[in-house]
Parts: sequence; C-alpha cells; structure tokens
Amino acid sequence: MTEILPNFLKNRASLTPDREAIVYKNERLTFKELYERAYHYAGILTAFGIKDKDYVGFLVKNDLETVLHLYAMQIIGAKAVLLNNRLTVKEMAYQLSDANASYLITEENFQEQAIQLEEELVISIFYKEKLEDNPYIEPIEKRQLHLDDTCTIMYTSGTTGLPKGVIQSYGNHWWSAVGNTLNAGLYEKDTWLCAVPLFHISGYSILMRSIIYGMKIVLHDSFDEKKVLADLWKEKVTIISVVTTMLQRIEHVASDRFPDYFRYMLLGGGPATIDLLTRCMKKEIPVYYSYGMTETSSQIVTLSPEDSIRKIGSAGKPLFPAQLKIVNHSGETLEPNEVGEITVCGPNVSKGYLNKDNHLKDGWFFTGDIGYTDSEGFLYVLDRRSDLIISGGENVYPAEVEAVLTDMEGIREAAVIGIPNNKWGQVPIAFVAKEKSMLTEQQIINNCENSLAKYKIPKRIFFVTEVPRNASGKIVRRELRKWVEEQADFSL
Amino acid sequence: MTEILPNFLKNRASLTPDREAIVYKNERLTFKELYERAYHYAGILTAFGIKDKDYVGFLVKNDLETVLHLYAMQIIGAKAVLLNNRLTVKEMAYQLSDANASYLITEENFQEQAIQLEEELVISIFYKEKLEDNPYIEPIEKRQLHLDDTCTIMYTSGTTGLPKGVIQSYGNHWWSAVGNTLNAGLYEKDTWLCAVPLFHISGYSILMRSIIYGMKIVLHDSFDEKKVLADLWKEKVTIISVVTTMLQRIEHVASDRFPDYFRYMLLGGGPATIDLLTRCMKKEIPVYYSYGMTETSSQIVTLSPEDSIRKIGSAGKPLFPAQLKIVNHSGETLEPNEVGEITVCGPNVSKGYLNKDNHLKDGWFFTGDIGYTDSEGFLYVLDRRSDLIISGGENVYPAEVEAVLTDMEGIREAAVIGIPNNKWGQVPIAFVAKEKSMLTEQQIINNCENSLAKYKIPKRIFFVTEVPRNASGKIVRRELRKWVEEQADFSL
Repeated sequence: MTEILPNFLKNRASLTPDREAIVYKNERLTFKELYERAYHYAGILTAFGIKDKDYVGFLVKNDLETVLHLYAMQIIGAKAVLLNNRLTVKEMAYQLSDANASYLITEENFQEQAIQLEEELVISIFYKEKLEDNPYIEPIEKRQLHLDDTCTIMYTSGTTGLPKGVIQSYGNHWWSAVGNTLNAGLYEKDTWLCAVPLFHISGYSILMRSIIYGMKIVLHDSFDEKKVLADLWKEKVTIISVVTTMLQRIEHVASDRFPDYFRYMLLGGGPATIDLLTRCMKKEIPVYYSYGMTETSSQIVTLSPEDSIRKIGSAGKPLFPAQLKIVNHSGETLEPNEVGEITVCGPNVSKGYLNKDNHLKDGWFFTGDIGYTDSEGFLYVLDRRSDLIISGGENVYPAEVEAVLTDMEGIREAAVIGIPNNKWGQVPIAFVAKEKSMLTEQQIINNCENSLAKYKIPKRIFFVTEVPRNASGKIVRRELRKWVEEQADFSL
Repeated sequence: MTEILPNFLKNRASLTPDREAIVYKNERLTFKELYERAYHYAGILTAFGIKDKDYVGFLVKNDLETVLHLYAMQIIGAKAVLLNNRLTVKEMAYQLSDANASYLITEENFQEQAIQLEEELVISIFYKEKLEDNPYIEPIEKRQLHLDDTCTIMYTSGTTGLPKGVIQSYGNHWWSAVGNTLNAGLYEKDTWLCAVPLFHISGYSILMRSIIYGMKIVLHDSFDEKKVLADLWKEKVTIISVVTTMLQRIEHVASDRFPDYFRYMLLGGGPATIDLLTRCMKKEIPVYYSYGMTETSSQIVTLSPEDSIRKIGSAGKPLFPAQLKIVNHSGETLEPNEVGEITVCGPNVSKGYLNKDNHLKDGWFFTGDIGYTDSEGFLYVLDRRSDLIISGGENVYPAEVEAVLTDMEGIREAAVIGIPNNKWGQVPIAFVAKEKSMLTEQQIINNCENSLAKYKIPKRIFFVTEVPRNASGKIVRRELRKWVEEQADFSL
C-alpha cells in the first residue's frame, strides 16, 4: 500500500499559515489565505456539480484565479485535465473526450473555443470570471490523500501520433519535489519564479513544490525577460524555471551581476547549446540543466551544483529517488559510452496513460530518447524520442503532424522534421507526396489550422515523389535532414 | 506496493562521490571511500556467514568502524539489532534471543559481555578489531530496496515491562529524513555533529540523513561539550543533535557567539525546561525542540524556525508527512486545549514490533504520552507515556524496573517513579513492600545489577507496607511523587 499523507495545501496552511505563498501582479497571499480562498472555490465548484474523482478540463492562462481553481481540485479530490491553451478546438475535443471530462474550467479569453467544445461534447463550462455568480455548497474536503491517487492529466503525443493522457499521481509530484530538494537543497528564503505555463509540468510542478516546501511563488502571466529580471530583484527570487529560448533572452538582456541570493535557473524542456551555457557561466548565471518529460513529472536527471562546469553539456545524474539505464534494442543494459535508448524508473515516473495498457516494463519507462552515460554516470542526451521537435519549449511530434497531413484528401504520404531556428530553437517542416492533386503549399498549411496548434504547423512544405523509408517502412528522417543541410540558401 | 529506491549509500556514492561524508578523529572519508570501505566490510561479513535478511546484533560504541559495519549491513540487506551498550548481559540476551539474532558484531571493549552472551545463546561473535583477519567473499549487493524492507531493530520497553523490538524500515528512516528537510531546510554546506549514541534512533537517524542528503557527519565517540564546541568551529558544523543534559552543558560552557553558519540544535529525547530554552535564546543558540520516539524513527513533531520564540515550551507541529491527534479514552478526537493521549501517524511511524501483533489502530500509533494542542495546533507534552523516566536522555520504564524488583525473593510488590536530578534530569527510585524478609536497601540495589542497566537501577529504595493502587489495581504513582515532594530534606 502506498503512503497516506495529509492533503498538501491544507497541511501547509496549518504548518506555516503566515508565510507568503504566492505573488501575482499586485496580489499577495499567505498559505492560510491561499487555502481559504481555494476552499471557497472548492465550495462553488461543488455546487456546480464537480465531485471527487471527476476529470475536469482546464483551458486557462497563468493567473492567480487559475492557481486557486487548480488547488480547489486538490481539496475536492477532482483530477485536472490540463489543456495546452494553444491547441485547436479539434485537438482539445479529442483530449477532453478521451479523459471523459464532464466539466471544463475556462476563462473569457477562450470563450470562442469553449462554445465550440460545448457544441461538440457533453460538457459543462465554468468561466473563472463568473465564480461569484454561482451558488456555494460546503465542499467534501479530502483531508488525506493516497500517494497513488491521480492528481493531474497532461496529454503528450508519441510515435503513434495520437495524444495520450499521462496520469500524474500525488506521489509522482511529491517525489519529484523531494528529489529536487535532495539535489538542489531547500533554503528558508527560497522563492520560485514561474513564467512557464501552469498547464505544462514545468509550471504545475512549481505549484506542488510551493505547498510541499512552504515556498513563495512569483507567478507571471507570460514570459517577459525584462519583467523576470525586475522581479528577480524586487521579490528576491532564488530560482527560475526556464526553457532554452527563455534563458537565451534572459542572458541577452542581463547586464548586472545576479544578486547573491539567486540560486539557479532550472533549465528543462529540450536541448541547450554549450555556447548558451558558456555565456551564462561567463555572466555568473548558475544554470542547472535538466532532462525530463511529462511522464517523469518534471526533471528526472539534473546536473548537480558541483558538476555544472566540469560536465557542461551533460544533463547530469538521476535525482536521488530515480534510476537511469541505457539499453539496446533487446533491452539489455549497455556499458558507459555506448549509445542506446534512455530508460528511467523511480517514484516520480507516471504509472501509465489514461485508457491505455501499462507502459512500464518491470517498472522502467522507455523514453524513446537516445543517449549515453560517461564513465562517471553523467547522462548525455543525443536525440529526443520519436525525432521530437522542440519549438519554443513546446513538443511537436512528427507522427502527429504526419497523421494530420496524410488524412488530407490528395496527400499520399508525408514526413515531418524539425530544422534549426534562431528564435524557437526548432520549427517543423514537411515533405509531402501528393496523389494526382493540385494542392498547393499554402492550401496544405491552411488546412492544418483546424487540426493543429500553430506551433505544430509546418512552416514549409516540400513536394516529393516519395518519402524515404527503410526496409521496415519507417521514415528515414535523417535523409531529409541531410537534404536540408545541403541547401545552402535555405533559411526560415 | 511501496516504492523501490536505489540502495541509499551506493546511490549517494554514485551521485556525489567526492563530497566529504564523515569525519572521525583524524580520519575523513568521501562518499565514494565510505561506500568502498563498507562494501569491503560487507564482503568480510558475507564470508563470516551473514546474509540478506539475517538479524545481526550490534554491541558497539560510536566510531568509524561501527559506522562502516552498519552501512555494510545495508549493502547486504541484513538487519541491525542495535543494543544499548549500557544494558546488562541478561537484558542483551533477552533482546538478541527475541530477535533471533545468530550473529553479534562487537568490539574488545565488550569482550566480557560477548563471552557471556556466547555461553547463553547460539550466536557467532564478530570482533570489529579482527576484521582483516577474516576471509573475504564478494558480497551479494542489494542494489535496490523496497521502502518497507526492515533496516534496523531497536528495543524499547512499554507498560508491560518487557522490551519490544521496534521494526524500523528503510521507508521509516527515509520519510523521517525527508520530513526533517521540509521543516528545517537543506543547505549545501550542512554538516551534522553526532555525539549521541549510534545505537539510539537519535544517532542512527544521522547516518541515514547523511547518505540521503549527501551531508557530512562529524562523529564523536562520546559527548564532551568542549570537544563539541571545538569542532563546531573547526569543521563548520551547522547542526547538532542533543538531549537536554547535553544542551545544558553546552549552554553552560558556551562563551562566544555561535558562528553565523551554525543553523540549529535538534533537541529531543525528553522534556526541556523553559529556563534552559530561554538561556539558549539569550545566547543566540538556535534550538529546535522536538518530540519523537524510537517508534517514530526520530522526531515527529518539531518547533519550526518562525515559532521558536513565540511558542517556547511547545514541541511544535508535526513534520509535513505526519499527522497528530489528541484523543480521549474512547479514542475520540479532542478539541484544542483538551488534554488527552497523543496519537500520531505517518510514513515515518514503525509498522510494529518484532513477534508482536500490529500495534497501530487504523494507522495511528497511540504513544501513551499525555498532552494537548493549542488553538493554532502546537503540541504541548505534559507527561511521557507509562510514567516514563528520562535519565540523561535514556528511557527508563517503571514497569520494567518493577518487574525485576517483584521477581526478587522477599519482595511482594514495588512501585518506581522518577525524581528530579540536577545532573541527569531524572533518576529512578523505588517503593517496595517486603514479604517477611530481612532484605536491606543495599541488597536490593545489588541484586538489580545483573538484570538492569546502571541508569535503570533505583537510586533509593523506600520500604512501605503496601503500594498505593486505584480501584482497577493500577499503581497511583502521583501519590508517591507527592510524598517525595513533601519530604523537605529529601535530595539525591
């Protein structure tokens, strides 16, 4: 039996009621206030019909109201299905329907999408702005939680092209928070700035750390490097979560030396160039480069303080509770410096996907990513899984984009790859083999707009007679990448 | 199913091999060296016959060799039965026999006791000093551990008078270490001075924290306040575990202001006077007063940094993963400020005693201690369980001493209480009703020496015609304490 713990937020409010919990624009709440307001919201959501164990969609931006609604879910014991708010209505509808969500919490920013979702699905829409217009019923509070209770669902695509709902338990989030502390320490004045989306694990994990550690969050509605630097001084921020593009922009504008209390940038969400890491080092911006994914509930491998210079470019070593293995095609563990698939296990690793069979093999999660460890056990990630494209910190799965393209009338086959881009790190492009058809590049791109979030739509379409495939019919993307590299005048 | 984690010491050595792990006199080991030496010891103990799941007695003092042998147990997966080295041979024999221990690891200091134990029990004795005279067999290393695997056994007595072996799992130790961190933080330079016995949970828990946190221990063979203060500066110690008598002695000799890097004294093992806590406050010695016991694998309730002044005298609030309830005789939860029995639950609480039925009620441990919480949830401990006497940080259970006394020929009944003592906090005294017998006070005291550790032997014996009892036959100790208080010329 997994462990039973007191409900995190209530417990935190009872242990350190007067500590500051969150700052958002001009609002500041202590843990006691945070709990009391979230409790009030839980009562209104209860009156709206939301109960323990319901799956509740969230289509929201970062703000204090979003945070309160998310904590309200934990008070009731309802599960939040966090939608990437850049998805198309079609993509959202698929996820809400797969999760069997009967409720959607959203805001006026997304009214248009919400109305369309209401037409397509049997779902009740709750607008954050209209909270106080609703009745209140005393909520049935979950005072204790089992660590294997489901807390959140976040969708991620894989090789199949169909998004899968990653089940993140309270235990997954707990162990992730504890693993971070055992690696990076926990200081009395720690203050974590969150300018990453709360619907991503990068953002949501900060909410969990806050109530587990008793630590202040400085929440931003979006990322603006100048505002980040301003709050770094004003709010005495000690930790900031960033993806590569954010770190680039911060490094670019940072002129003053960072204050002594600043502890680190937690860098995740994709590869960083050694050049960027070196520039940060020169400006004395401490960076903890990490490797993780939705399925590992945030970082699982992180470069430790003492190794950040000597092992620059490595993603580091596993967090204390986790384990790492590089395996070959037969699943056999490889020796140091041998390249293979990265597999991980640990209590922060999701036990599975919604409505899917268990995906772990003897407790190990096969990431699909390629890498090796050096003789000291440091991980080097060579290639993200499924030729994953990471564009501005968002994951784009080629298989998902290819499935949309080949579904279009007039297209026989399609292959998608990422190419380097100064602003976003990478952007997707597609190679398309048409049936007898007059389809143009622009028509195909336009057709994608209903089915794919903007960052997933190929920026260019190249027509080919056929897509290169290997003997077993798998697309050989490296040939396409090679072709792109050979186009001297090619730029995006 | 509870979680599976990598074996703590091996994992720590792999994550931060070059960090300093332990300092003892002139020896210093990094985590890599600590692991390699413990691994070597594991091989020698394997050749000696010790295997996974064996119960292995430890009759040792604090030194580096003891630490290495204790970690060697964890490498093999054998369970250490930690004997209080002040016990009599009879007491030790009872515990080793109850734990079915076939091996005893000891040292020449305890040769006399070991020889007697070998005569009484079927047990193989291993002397630490003779380590290298023994053969070596590659050990079968436990690379992973289930958090519910048993790690250590420590005996404690209760109302029955017979010591019971508290089963402490790896998970109990893990959650205790994590709970401490979430309360007190974890700093990169944390260094924990251990001058408490390793056979107590106060000492053993420091070994666990060291490998879980990656934190240096400064180990002392015994408590000497001047040596503690010397190392505080020399080794840049940030945390020290103390019992009340130790803190008194440190406070007494401390003349300089403590260095800024010093973080706190973790005070456990019994009540402290408000006078002492106030004196420490005046000298700016930060003290975290805590409440815990062998069954909770160290502290479970601790006074937080921000409350240490405002709530002086309180034991604080539960550690984050734990919960606290005050109940009445029927087991109903009481309101704040109502006095009742202290009950606790949490993943650091032992699941039970060796060879005994499960002692938890719905997961809650009934401590037998009496106290209340105030309106803010702070615990105040009024009376330790079973009229527990705490003498120099060691627990003395009246029932255990009474059982030895009434077993003596010529004694009909006996009652034991603790009385205040300047040096030890408390010492035990006894009230004895004789059968027709010529027994003298000195004879009774002498007779105790075979059966009771020195600190448990009554310092005075008073002869009475009968012991005061209530209607249900229970000894009314408060009447005896009242009688003692009325003796103006009484002192010990």
